[in-house]
Amino acid sequence: MPPNLLLSGLMALPTERPPEGVNLQEWLYLELRDAMLVGRLPAGSKLPGSRTLASHLCVARGTVQAAYQQLLSEGYVVSRPGSGTRVCMELPDAKLRITSSQQSAGVKIPARRMPPVTDWGERLKSITSAFAKRRVAPGLRPFFPMRCDVQSFPIDLWRKLHIQQMRSSKVETLLDYEPAGLPSLRLAIAEHVGSARGVQVSADNIVVLSSVQQGIDLCLRLLAPPRARVWMEDPGYPGVRQLMALAGCEVVDVPVDQQGLRVQDGIQAAPEAALAYVTPSRHMPCGHELSPPRRLALLHWARASGAYIIEDDYDSEYRFIAKPIPALRAMAGADDLVILAGTFSKLLFPSVRLAYLVLPQHLVDVFTRAVALTSRHPNSLSQAVLAAFFNQGHFDRHVRRMRKLYSLRAEALNCAASQHWQGLIEVPEIRAGLDTPCSLLVGDEAEACRRIEEVNVDVLPLARFYKAPSSPGFLLGFAAYEERSIFDAALAVRKALI
Amino acid sequence: MPPNLLLSGLMALPTERPPEGVNLQEWLYLELRDAMLVGRLPAGSKLPGSRTLASHLCVARGTVQAAYQQLLSEGYVVSRPGSGTRVCMELPDAKLRITSSQQSAGVKIPARRMPPVTDWGERLKSITSAFAKRRVAPGLRPFFPMRCDVQSFPIDLWRKLHIQQMRSSKVETLLDYEPAGLPSLRLAIAEHVGSARGVQVSADNIVVLSSVQQGIDLCLRLLAPPRARVWMEDPGYPGVRQLMALAGCEVVDVPVDQQGLRVQDGIQAAPEAALAYVTPSRHMPCGHELSPPRRLALLHWARASGAYIIEDDYDSEYRFIAKPIPALRAMAGADDLVILAGTFSKLLFPSVRLAYLVLPQHLVDVFTRAVALTSRHPNSLSQAVLAAFFNQGHFDRHVRRMRKLYSLRAEALNCAASQHWQGLIEVPEIRAGLDTPCSLLVGDEAEACRRIEEVNVDVLPLARFYKAPSSPGFLLGFAAYEERSIFDAALAVRKALI
Repeated sequence: MPPNLLLSGLMALPTERPPEGVNLQEWLYLELRDAMLVGRLPAGSKLPGSRTLASHLCVARGTVQAAYQQLLSEGYVVSRPGSGTRVCMELPDAKLRITSSQQSAGVKIPARRMPPVTDWGERLKSITSAFAKRRVAPGLRPFFPMRCDVQSFPIDLWRKLHIQQMRSSKVETLLDYEPAGLPSLRLAIAEHVGSARGVQVSADNIVVLSSVQQGIDLCLRLLAPPRARVWMEDPGYPGVRQLMALAGCEVVDVPVDQQGLRVQDGIQAAPEAALAYVTPSRHMPCGHELSPPRRLALLHWARASGAYIIEDDYDSEYRFIAKPIPALRAMAGADDLVILAGTFSKLLFPSVRLAYLVLPQHLVDVFTRAVALTSRHPNSLSQAVLAAFFNQGHFDRHVRRMRKLYSLRAEALNCAASQHWQGLIEVPEIRAGLDTPCSLLVGDEAEACRRIEEVNVDVLPLARFYKAPSSPGFLLGFAAYEERSIFDAALAVRKALI
Repeated sequence: MPPNLLLSGLMALPTERPPEGVNLQEWLYLELRDAMLVGRLPAGSKLPGSRTLASHLCVARGTVQAAYQQLLSEGYVVSRPGSGTRVCMELPDAKLRITSSQQSAGVKIPARRMPPVTDWGERLKSITSAFAKRRVAPGLRPFFPMRCDVQSFPIDLWRKLHIQQMRSSKVETLLDYEPAGLPSLRLAIAEHVGSARGVQVSADNIVVLSSVQQGIDLCLRLLAPPRARVWMEDPGYPGVRQLMALAGCEVVDVPVDQQGLRVQDGIQAAPEAALAYVTPSRHMPCGHELSPPRRLALLHWARASGAYIIEDDYDSEYRFIAKPIPALRAMAGADDLVILAGTFSKLLFPSVRLAYLVLPQHLVDVFTRAVALTSRHPNSLSQAVLAAFFNQGHFDRHVRRMRKLYSLRAEALNCAASQHWQGLIEVPEIRAGLDTPCSLLVGDEAEACRRIEEVNVDVLPLARFYKAPSSPGFLLGFAAYEERSIFDAALAVRKALI
């Protein structure tokens, strides 16, 4: 007998004694039978000798023999002289129990294709591509957009706040919190959107989530019935358009110009839309602000038609020239129409995975119920640390520092472009954000991307953001890269394109 | 002029100079107009004098006067001798721009009821109750069930791991990771389910989530079309039944007995069901194991019909008498039928908010795409810390320590019950888990709950778990409470019921 079979046979058996007062033989019989049925003792495997097992379990050898006898009589094991006791190739349960009970039930089990996937799953497959593993971090290279600079994040301070948090509140940190998020963080966010974005709101209107995508998914589940029409910016952020399509909505692509969303075009195309998604502070990817008249027109339409507006305020803190303009949500009459979405992934660092929605009062209850049932709040410790980061004034300091840094990097990109890209790529004056769109002046967008990638530089083709035909160009990130590497990458791009 | 009006008017204006090369008068005109349109300069408010504003902005007084003149001529402000310059009560945009553009669009905006909520939202409202704020932690009292002991969690060690993690990998910690979760944590989970649950699986089959609820929500979105029938245990965990109803599925309540789910009853009632939810290791709330013949029958049905099985393995590590039995997912032939769900909220502490699914290979891609689009991975730092907690052997040590502690507390509850509850409440011998069902021998369940709550003790009525009529009883937690308070609470319950 190969030793590993004995070993594995023994390991599959209980090593602890049965509870007091239990019939040992019955117990052993059940344990062995169960081990066979669940496959821990596979068909054909050899059971240990009764003497070995008895000593292993500290029971009498007769007990083991009696249990083996019962298994033998019921057809679970076979015993042949010189070959020991082995598990039958087909267990009586497979032959009898299931088949007979199916017959007794008198039900024919219908066959169904595998894997059954819902319409939601089918849509998911058609609008996303098979998931490829990402390039391993930290291979983040210029000019990958939508990234803040993690090198400059005060990680030592962040660590200290973790330590403080786990010291000061100890057990409280480990307990569960309200589904809508840690009260102290919701209060800090309410104060932040008040001072930075002009949005006067109470902590009760805030729900903390892992990401804006999660928030928009919730908005669509709650506010956009399947087949409802929804306004999407064109060009616009592909992740949101995908969520809308995934929800089964009919996506109405509303054109965008220098004043932002062309509200009248939206009204013309789909006056009865259930909601509109906009990036009023800095259009993604074009960078324009939604003009005040358009803001008024959008609110007017939403109020008249009963639609909601999702305002994605993804990086509005970073304006280099003037102050951030107030949020759409801050306008008079906007508070029961506009859901403001914000994220800390772009303000602090991507893996913090904290975002929020500012909700109209009448939607707070239904969103809280939805969150409570489908996900609950994110990790509490990171919420508590972020609350402390706000309350001790670090947040504002960090944003101010980064604004200055990113402004220099924006200047560097403008400068590098005028130095190296004359006649090739035109970069507008950068006034805000983490990235900028630019125009490709010669050649084909896809071909240029391919060539640029060959010299180890990342750019995102603007075509990714457009449903309508677009003139060639890229979205270029600058905030995450040092000035030196911005110049080096600009030179490499020049060489690749010429 | 009241000083606060001047002040607020000034504060609404840009404090920074316009960019180089911009026409100052045009810039100031636009800034002021926008401030009026978005409401920063409200209707009727007074503009600062031209001299004051000019000195504030460091521009020539003539520039301010010219900008004011333009606003005056377009109807944004009025100027009366002795009263200064004030914002008009009705802005020209409100009168002209929006109205005229609506007319030009020639579209009547249909009115829609507020708030528009989807069928999903309507179902959510009907199956959940308005969200009430929880009793503030740490008022966790015996015998609230489904809770582990956070007092015994090694929080100092957890803090050290945070510090290590933020030192050793610094920037990497801050970057984004794969949507399915941190590779090192997925590997640790794969090894854990291998050794603790007998499930041989690769890290690629693991997706890390915030909670099992999130995982089951995803399973339903992907695998259970609306109006599909799904098997639910009766009694069973209400949170999952709610998710099924929320998904628009027809919930088929399959009875449970001492062998666990009555599979034949399920087949009889809904042979074509899209999926079945089971708690095979320790039935929630009854505590029974799903018997081996039933396991076989369930797998056989799922294979024949193309259904999926969701195995919720919520606290299987805590068995006090014998070893944990292997997961259903560990049985031969189960790997493409069974989705195993596990959580760390009950193994470590509730606010860690980390859970996982073990997926069949052919579902990995579609689940990863769904996670990538609708939520992404949870906070990376907590994932990295948990991976280290596993890799340095702390996880196994902690579970072993807790198993011993909870076993003593289970004994304490059994002992307290026999001391104080004779003829009132019958508690079975507790062999596993964090809580136990018990039978109320006299009186009405709701009335008993009310009386028990009056003496500051928490019990969860078993009726919450049943769709079918049930005999009265409670689910009692013991793991989170010290022996002393278990005895005290048992005595208080006795006094409340007699």
